[in-house]
Amino acid sequence: MGRVTTRRRVIRVVDGRPTARPDTLVAEEPLEIRVDGKSLSVTMRTPVDDFDLAAGFLVSEGVISRADQLSAIRYCAGATADGQNTYNVLDATLADGVPGPDPSLERNFYTTSSCGLCGKASLDAVRTSAAWTVEADSLRVSAETIVGLPDSLRAAQKVFDRTGGLHAAGLFDADGTLLCLREDVGRHNAVDKVVGWAVRDGRLPLSGTILMVSGRASFELVQKATMAGIPMLAAVSAPSSLAVDLAAEMGLTLVGFLRGNSMNVYAGAHRVALAESPVG
Amino acid sequence: MGRVTTRRRVIRVVDGRPTARPDTLVAEEPLEIRVDGKSLSVTMRTPVDDFDLAAGFLVSEGVISRADQLSAIRYCAGATADGQNTYNVLDATLADGVPGPDPSLERNFYTTSSCGLCGKASLDAVRTSAAWTVEADSLRVSAETIVGLPDSLRAAQKVFDRTGGLHAAGLFDADGTLLCLREDVGRHNAVDKVVGWAVRDGRLPLSGTILMVSGRASFELVQKATMAGIPMLAAVSAPSSLAVDLAAEMGLTLVGFLRGNSMNVYAGAHRVALAESPVG
Repeated sequence: MGRVTTRRRVIRVVDGRPTARPDTLVAEEPLEIRVDGKSLSVTMRTPVDDFDLAAGFLVSEGVISRADQLSAIRYCAGATADGQNTYNVLDATLADGVPGPDPSLERNFYTTSSCGLCGKASLDAVRTSAAWTVEADSLRVSAETIVGLPDSLRAAQKVFDRTGGLHAAGLFDADGTLLCLREDVGRHNAVDKVVGWAVRDGRLPLSGTILMVSGRASFELVQKATMAGIPMLAAVSAPSSLAVDLAAEMGLTLVGFLRGNSMNVYAGAHRVALAESPVG
Repeated sequence: MGRVTTRRRVIRVVDGRPTARPDTLVAEEPLEIRVDGKSLSVTMRTPVDDFDLAAGFLVSEGVISRADQLSAIRYCAGATADGQNTYNVLDATLADGVPGPDPSLERNFYTTSSCGLCGKASLDAVRTSAAWTVEADSLRVSAETIVGLPDSLRAAQKVFDRTGGLHAAGLFDADGTLLCLREDVGRHNAVDKVVGWAVRDGRLPLSGTILMVSGRASFELVQKATMAGIPMLAAVSAPSSLAVDLAAEMGLTLVGFLRGNSMNVYAGAHRVALAESPVG
């Protein structure tokens, strides 16, 4: 709880000359997420905002989409043999009548399916499991606002300067105001934490918002944005091919290489307000 | 096979002015890995060096540690309903007498264990499953050689400049000669591909070598290096706390923030040849 960083002794070597000194590192520990007492997943994460991470993970996996579907989240005391609470095991209690995770939830990690996997099958799986669509979202953002997001994200990343090892995800509204910032050693976890904050605060679907991430845009991040009803995903670095395909298919706006005063719009360009029509 | 990149139409926006143009993206597609016909895992990966990826994954998970434990790897034709080979499903055939994956292999993705999870438990799991130890490895590398690795890695990354979206892992010998380079949209996959190349070439354990990665050093990368018998892991960016703890416990040398002419040595500093003893 709040163990974002930790100290370790390090030998700093500059031009072959060593100096011993303490160094601040990002904390990384495993988190076991249980649902109604049954173990669902284990993820390596930075131990802060764990309740948001668990709630967001359940949204990403299609288990919940509203705050009232989750009646409680708590750390499990007595998870170890000596009864100690490690703060590394969480139990989420679903509200009465909410079905538990589908056994096919395993698809993301493990599969016993005999079907052939291809990009198309993955796209289909997402399309059928989302609680809402982002395609009709009327969000429209100026290019100026979008190019300002990375600086806003970095300015808000209190921890970043101390460790250099954390990924960040920030949720912004259409005029570039930061609504929520979460960090983690894993990019997917940072996004799950943002989505978890939102669902616990009764904000899903996240219509009219922009999700900005510090790294690349993978298929899974587009999937998570879609599951939360976020119509625009912006990334500092490159998207993958399948991220672009899924964004196009779901009607999500995908921006990459967001650096300085420039960006690439890979899908859903109608949401980016430009002074003129594209040339070329 | 060899689908490292793909082209998509993109709208490039500079100072609010849009231009439509084709863009090269990293290919990302799901790969299902089967062992003796039984589905074991699905990972999102860049579809190149798939056989190396599958073999390296099996090393990381403790299923194989020698080339002769694997009798064949092939793409599954007929994996889809229409009998098409998607090149996204692989089957690895273990040699006679080699036990299949332990059902507890699920621990990395999914757990039904009732034990409490903490960093210590994770360290124990790795210590008991490795086929060899790296602690006694006599590798010794000059600081000068180590600071030269990032440039060697980047120079060898043919694809990087075209997409900006690929992680790289490079295996080097003690004098900084590159032995193997692999790339992937996922860092873990890039490392598995290097390890898979090595096991298929009869090179495990990888005594006396250095694994260099383009990003951060997580717990899982230290785990993979250990499982392959690699005594030194060097990363361009920060390690996590658990990566440092595992490296120290296993006797692996861990270098981070390897930039310009400087680096931080987090564990196993005796393998870094320095002109003088650390001050401070």
